[in-house]
Amino acid sequence: MDMDTLLVEPVGLEQVEGALDRLFDESKIRAAKVGPGYRGLWETLERCTAGGKRFRPRLVMSAYQMLGGRDLDNAAGVGAAFELLHTALIVHDDVIDRDFVRRGIPNVSGRYRSIAESAGMSPEAARHVGFSAGVIAGDLALSNAYRLLERVEAPAAVRRRLGEILDEAVFASAAGEFLDIETSLDRSMPPLEDIVQMARLKTSVYSFEGPLQAGAVLAGAEEEVVDRLGDFGRDAGIAYQIADDLLGVFGNETRTGKTNWGDLREGKRTALLSYVSSRPEWESISALIGTPGMSAAEADYVRRVLVESGAKDYSADLAAEYASRARTHLESDVVPSALRSALEPVVSAVVDRVH
Amino acid sequence: MDMDTLLVEPVGLEQVEGALDRLFDESKIRAAKVGPGYRGLWETLERCTAGGKRFRPRLVMSAYQMLGGRDLDNAAGVGAAFELLHTALIVHDDVIDRDFVRRGIPNVSGRYRSIAESAGMSPEAARHVGFSAGVIAGDLALSNAYRLLERVEAPAAVRRRLGEILDEAVFASAAGEFLDIETSLDRSMPPLEDIVQMARLKTSVYSFEGPLQAGAVLAGAEEEVVDRLGDFGRDAGIAYQIADDLLGVFGNETRTGKTNWGDLREGKRTALLSYVSSRPEWESISALIGTPGMSAAEADYVRRVLVESGAKDYSADLAAEYASRARTHLESDVVPSALRSALEPVVSAVVDRVH
Repeated sequence: MDMDTLLVEPVGLEQVEGALDRLFDESKIRAAKVGPGYRGLWETLERCTAGGKRFRPRLVMSAYQMLGGRDLDNAAGVGAAFELLHTALIVHDDVIDRDFVRRGIPNVSGRYRSIAESAGMSPEAARHVGFSAGVIAGDLALSNAYRLLERVEAPAAVRRRLGEILDEAVFASAAGEFLDIETSLDRSMPPLEDIVQMARLKTSVYSFEGPLQAGAVLAGAEEEVVDRLGDFGRDAGIAYQIADDLLGVFGNETRTGKTNWGDLREGKRTALLSYVSSRPEWESISALIGTPGMSAAEADYVRRVLVESGAKDYSADLAAEYASRARTHLESDVVPSALRSALEPVVSAVVDRVH
Repeated sequence: MDMDTLLVEPVGLEQVEGALDRLFDESKIRAAKVGPGYRGLWETLERCTAGGKRFRPRLVMSAYQMLGGRDLDNAAGVGAAFELLHTALIVHDDVIDRDFVRRGIPNVSGRYRSIAESAGMSPEAARHVGFSAGVIAGDLALSNAYRLLERVEAPAAVRRRLGEILDEAVFASAAGEFLDIETSLDRSMPPLEDIVQMARLKTSVYSFEGPLQAGAVLAGAEEEVVDRLGDFGRDAGIAYQIADDLLGVFGNETRTGKTNWGDLREGKRTALLSYVSSRPEWESISALIGTPGMSAAEADYVRRVLVESGAKDYSADLAAEYASRARTHLESDVVPSALRSALEPVVSAVVDRVH
């Protein structure tokens, strides 16, 4: 499931695009003074940032406006900062996952690997050139997320709070990436609470909690509203991640845009596998999980076991449960009804996709 | 030549250590809530930051105080931000250079490669785990450089200017790293102006210009002083880098702590090689440069050619020329004599080491 298909009222998105365009235009001019190659790296980074549906900026702009904010140009800087953080994380995530393609086109690493291969480098050296360019490009995106936030006009206390929210998003996302690596060192499946924690760290904080809270803080909302939006974001993000993992195994390949046994091949730690790993059925599939050579027939077998063991239903129910908790937080009196109506479809979309 | 051996009056360094200690203590506590592994990553990052002589914070603190700044605790945050930027850049540089050791001890990648090997991973998979941990740790250091700067108390215009100086340091360092990769795709030696540009981007901006200008801006110095310090930093950094490259080939291994033919083996682009590449002597050594298997005897031969062709003297003179230019900028009336006296030894040390 692409997060970009979740619905949030598109308000002030032109301003977000404007903020991103200005940053890239300015950076490309600065980079061109260094040389055409560095300008090319910025163009590649711009392409990686283009074309998304701006899910995180939508949350920033919705929370901001529905809590009384009126200066869309200023808020757009916060939205754009979260979009660039997203770019930074996917660019570095692709380095970590050794991926060279995203959404069917070469990513930063893919582009520079090709350039290095054309220059006559060995495949291994060219791969490393690709990774290196990815490391540098991700650093630029991360640094420019802070740069965009620096330029937002706000009282000192609000600025500090926005800075803390962005820091927390980086801290949590790094933790989630790190736990992914750590669990990959151990063949056993982590308990469900670890799966939920990883979903929160990797998904909730930077994609849901951070954008919503930043929009609310900039609008000058009460601390209690900011807290409720954090609670909502946490549970909605967990619901999203569990649902996404389900679709990664059972989804329609055309719709999700990726093969639906990649996650099984990689042995990705999910609620599905955590559940089945404590059941007798685990013995019949454990040797298949995480084997790069898994065939389509083996994947079909694993899927059948996941259905019959109840793991699939369990995961779908778990996603629905977190979605329902997320909704409950919205019911708080401190959340304006317009904001509740704007965020409701986000959780509904999560659950509809997996039921 | 280790930059840390350059002399700058050590003022307010305890406050810088305090700022770094507080950041790491706080982060380790936060990280421990995620899990012991993530706390371990922060401990590793702290070790990578410890033990340096704090060259960049020294420049920040010197400029700040000698231009009238009195709030050392506040300025220490700026110094600590540049130290963490330094950590971020070396951690990611080690990933890009595929190094697993720094200053004789395992770096972030080295530590996590070992952990992955102990967990039974293949050497190649373990290397990648090491790189991945390096990518994440560097991101945390980079993000926390901004975090430290956020906390500095200053009027809005000063804060914005400090942010811009940090951004420029990241932008230039990334450009320098990128040009390094780009030139490695081409076997020819770049012209001298490219070597000088790379030295400025990789060394001057974040290690000299940025720290000096940030200290001056926080002290409320006139724009003209800030400009002169930028000019000084640019030329001092270029002098430093050319001298460092000379020592990388001709230095005493015990003193520099690295083998003195590593740079020749890697074919590192230096003023030495740029000079000799346009002379007839180049033919006799070009096939040796950049060959991983270069022997000590071959390195001796290359060194002899570099001496006889005049490349060594040329580089030493070039370093001295940039050092002399750097000194000239200090002679401006707008630079207080105390600051001039504090910075003089920096350039003298550069030149003394190579003559």
